[in-house]
Amino acid sequence: MKITILGAGAIASALSIPLTDRGHEVRLWFTEYDMPIYEKVSRGEPHPRTKIVLPSTIKLYKPEELERALKGADVIVLAVSSRGVLPVSKRVRETIGIPNEPIVVVAKGLEVVDDRVRTMTEIVREHMGSSNIVYVGGPSLAVELANKRPTYVVYASEEIDLAVKIASEFQTDYYKITVTNDVIGLELSAALKNIYAMAYGIVEGYLEAHGIVNKNLKAAVLSKSIEEMALIVSLCGGQKETVYGLGGLGDLYVTALGGRNSMFGNLLGRGLTVDEALKEMEIRGVGVVEGVKNAETIKRFLTEKNIPLEKTRIFNAVYAILYEDKDIGILFNSI
Amino acid sequence: MKITILGAGAIASALSIPLTDRGHEVRLWFTEYDMPIYEKVSRGEPHPRTKIVLPSTIKLYKPEELERALKGADVIVLAVSSRGVLPVSKRVRETIGIPNEPIVVVAKGLEVVDDRVRTMTEIVREHMGSSNIVYVGGPSLAVELANKRPTYVVYASEEIDLAVKIASEFQTDYYKITVTNDVIGLELSAALKNIYAMAYGIVEGYLEAHGIVNKNLKAAVLSKSIEEMALIVSLCGGQKETVYGLGGLGDLYVTALGGRNSMFGNLLGRGLTVDEALKEMEIRGVGVVEGVKNAETIKRFLTEKNIPLEKTRIFNAVYAILYEDKDIGILFNSI
Repeated sequence: MKITILGAGAIASALSIPLTDRGHEVRLWFTEYDMPIYEKVSRGEPHPRTKIVLPSTIKLYKPEELERALKGADVIVLAVSSRGVLPVSKRVRETIGIPNEPIVVVAKGLEVVDDRVRTMTEIVREHMGSSNIVYVGGPSLAVELANKRPTYVVYASEEIDLAVKIASEFQTDYYKITVTNDVIGLELSAALKNIYAMAYGIVEGYLEAHGIVNKNLKAAVLSKSIEEMALIVSLCGGQKETVYGLGGLGDLYVTALGGRNSMFGNLLGRGLTVDEALKEMEIRGVGVVEGVKNAETIKRFLTEKNIPLEKTRIFNAVYAILYEDKDIGILFNSI
Repeated sequence: MKITILGAGAIASALSIPLTDRGHEVRLWFTEYDMPIYEKVSRGEPHPRTKIVLPSTIKLYKPEELERALKGADVIVLAVSSRGVLPVSKRVRETIGIPNEPIVVVAKGLEVVDDRVRTMTEIVREHMGSSNIVYVGGPSLAVELANKRPTYVVYASEEIDLAVKIASEFQTDYYKITVTNDVIGLELSAALKNIYAMAYGIVEGYLEAHGIVNKNLKAAVLSKSIEEMALIVSLCGGQKETVYGLGGLGDLYVTALGGRNSMFGNLLGRGLTVDEALKEMEIRGVGVVEGVKNAETIKRFLTEKNIPLEKTRIFNAVYAILYEDKDIGILFNSI
């Protein structure tokens, strides 16, 4: 089958590996922001984010070649950044009209559109016009997937048969897919986990900086984070079970183990201010800490959904540390 | 209030710290096995397991002083090893009859009694005769509790009011207690977690020994272990939520981070045979790997409860590695 991946960043290019292994014709479309990557990949150099040379069978398309990239595609994978989902959705619709092909959405997060917070699939539905959507969640560090390291993910669709069909086409022996119909639960898990990984990082950084061994507390903050995420998801109409599985616990854990948000939290835990920690992240050259902006959007989302403040104690504490100049002690009092 | 702790090992003595801080009269009763500890503690030396000097207000009782230790107690804490629960339960009943006081059970595991697998509270109920029971679970490494490091646990009782009452007497600012009525869920979580921590250790050891970074897989084995534990608990009449909280996820995580079972699993993951790994654990002097014996008892328990084999893939794999001479590859194929 012909699969067009929109976006060419770390996870987009990583996904091209199992899809190629499954014998699909894979097309990678580069946005304007991806052009520095295009320059390298098109010369056969490794992808700068994953350090992997892409299979030569993958067809590369420049920003202006969107129509050609989409022509005859059986599945469209939307793997741009969360901020890119709105403009790229509109662009697809303007280019080929409302697509009939299934849209597999890999982008994670929440975005404010028309003064209201939307999930990734809501934006696709409203602005690309498609409702033939599969959402991808679960612990999936791109570098590992690109290296064909075992990776277990979750595909969600309100039409479960569509998720099953796509999963059966995408799955390999190292890229294993389970399915669910709980799209909102999976999307919110993916969006919320950065904040809770940051909370975990704050606790870890504090303990490390003070030479304190307190695994009981690390276990508690992980476990209470999952409970809080599950509560938010259930109050928004999703299933708690989604949070307790790969899409929530799995993704939170992998993010806490190896992500930028937990690294940033770790710096806060060591006593750096938010500004100092952001500067240090810049010096380390590890890229944007999504959780900082996420926290504002999630704050707004929780207000829109009328989630009672006392139900989100850990989130509130992280938000207060980031935006209300509160000491990290507030987090330790909120676990 | 007067609180008699039966047993004087790591967790028994650690618990005496918050109870003393709460102003209770704490009595510590030593079994025959605890006498080497008695010799030290009674001279004011640190407890050999936690390295903490116990508060001088704690009253120490020798094995033959059980009656005096229990006289006038308001609460009895049963904190002997899982194997000690049967004989000590009988001994309490023989000494003072069926106690009216609440029994707080800290022992963890499953034991075969009269040719059937029983939980700790079942043994207390049947052999001490009391049904006034509170069960303690959650991530609680004794050394950390003894050092007053923040520790979050769960107290369970079929009569929730009893759990609430005991929690309100035991809780301090560093020993925080939530309550549930799901005794079986909490007991099974505590009993099962050693096996799944071993599975986590096997994966981790394999990756480390081969220099492979695969956090996606570590997240998957943690998440799938929790799902399997939750399924077993629910099939046995407990609540999945218990497994997803401190009592399951929290306890599994702390065990995976710092326990003997994950350390043993790690050695298996590095390619040692079961015998070699047991020998290495002996050389390291870290004590008994409970999970190895646990696995046999749990296997028997799952059979007694008619849990379908295909529901416990990770458990089966660990069991097969331990007792059927199977290669660790079987675990990787069961995630």
